[in-house]
Amino acid sequence: MFISFEGGDGCGKSTQQRRLAAWLESRGREVVLCRDPGSTSLGDAVRNILLHGTELKIADRTEMFLFMAARCQMVEELIRPALVAGKVVLSDRFLMSSFVYQGFAGGVPLESLESTGRIAVDGIMPDLSVVLDLPYEVAVRRIGGRAEPDRMERKGEEYHRRVRDGFLHFARIDPRRCEVVDATKTPGEVEQAIRDKISGILS
Amino acid sequence: MFISFEGGDGCGKSTQQRRLAAWLESRGREVVLCRDPGSTSLGDAVRNILLHGTELKIADRTEMFLFMAARCQMVEELIRPALVAGKVVLSDRFLMSSFVYQGFAGGVPLESLESTGRIAVDGIMPDLSVVLDLPYEVAVRRIGGRAEPDRMERKGEEYHRRVRDGFLHFARIDPRRCEVVDATKTPGEVEQAIRDKISGILS
Repeated sequence: MFISFEGGDGCGKSTQQRRLAAWLESRGREVVLCRDPGSTSLGDAVRNILLHGTELKIADRTEMFLFMAARCQMVEELIRPALVAGKVVLSDRFLMSSFVYQGFAGGVPLESLESTGRIAVDGIMPDLSVVLDLPYEVAVRRIGGRAEPDRMERKGEEYHRRVRDGFLHFARIDPRRCEVVDATKTPGEVEQAIRDKISGILS
Repeated sequence: MFISFEGGDGCGKSTQQRRLAAWLESRGREVVLCRDPGSTSLGDAVRNILLHGTELKIADRTEMFLFMAARCQMVEELIRPALVAGKVVLSDRFLMSSFVYQGFAGGVPLESLESTGRIAVDGIMPDLSVVLDLPYEVAVRRIGGRAEPDRMERKGEEYHRRVRDGFLHFARIDPRRCEVVDATKTPGEVEQAIRDKISGILS
């Protein structure tokens, strides 16, 4: 089983990823955690360029290709082998994030994201994408405490509102594989909502 | 006008690129030189990963996405503006190299290269690709003197024979935009053969 956590910065993806992992492990499942981009040596090198290469000019389509490179490597090196071995994979972000950030809120045509995305994931898609939904104002308050904003975080308010709309849009058009969870609730409540959903699809 | 130089390692691409640039400049043209991957800050970062990241695992499709990222950035940052300004662009390698190395001699389906390539170059294609053709044995003798083989150069003989066949294959199916030049001849003879071809398309 492959589950991705999606949503804007500060919505609690990594917290919920860890909590769900602990719960699944307590039920005897082997769990692999990853984050996109990252989780492989190549992915970390690309992540470093994408999030911290502030002195680099990076065109929208270039950015898309870099995300796809990192994702492709993560699929081949980590996710596919884990799924073949019967493990549960929990990923902090996956393809939907590219659709939202580079496409819906960015300048890349959706057809370009669809065709490159199809090649990058090569048949490996989440059984469920958990979309943690959070209004912009709440997200800003939460991530306000973080040390230094990275390249993505420095984009403006309008952009982040588009990002939120984007996640809700893509969740709406694929309701069978997406679950929107109200991330303004307490971490415990969010955790429970995710568990309730997962219980239904756990084999 | 946009001209790319294609062919295996050691075939004389960069030498001929410089010689053609000098000749064009002597005829009053402004010339921009570039090499793919590279020629932008982002491209250099990606080139560094691709050619020298020997400790990194890089899947075939990942490699393709990285080359496309570097190429896309070079198109937007360098080639398109130069062409718009009426300059001549001479590139050491371009899209054909991905078709040959990742596709024909590698493991990536041609359809994947075609669809990602179309998105990466976004309408910018060479008016002419000069394919410098060299038998494997001659290439090996020539590059034997180089200090340390990079990641691409370490691949085996069979691979490099496929590479040569690949360049000839793609030149054959697009004869109007490709010129195969016998690179076993002296640099001066090769230079003259390229000039003869260019003269015909110089406006």
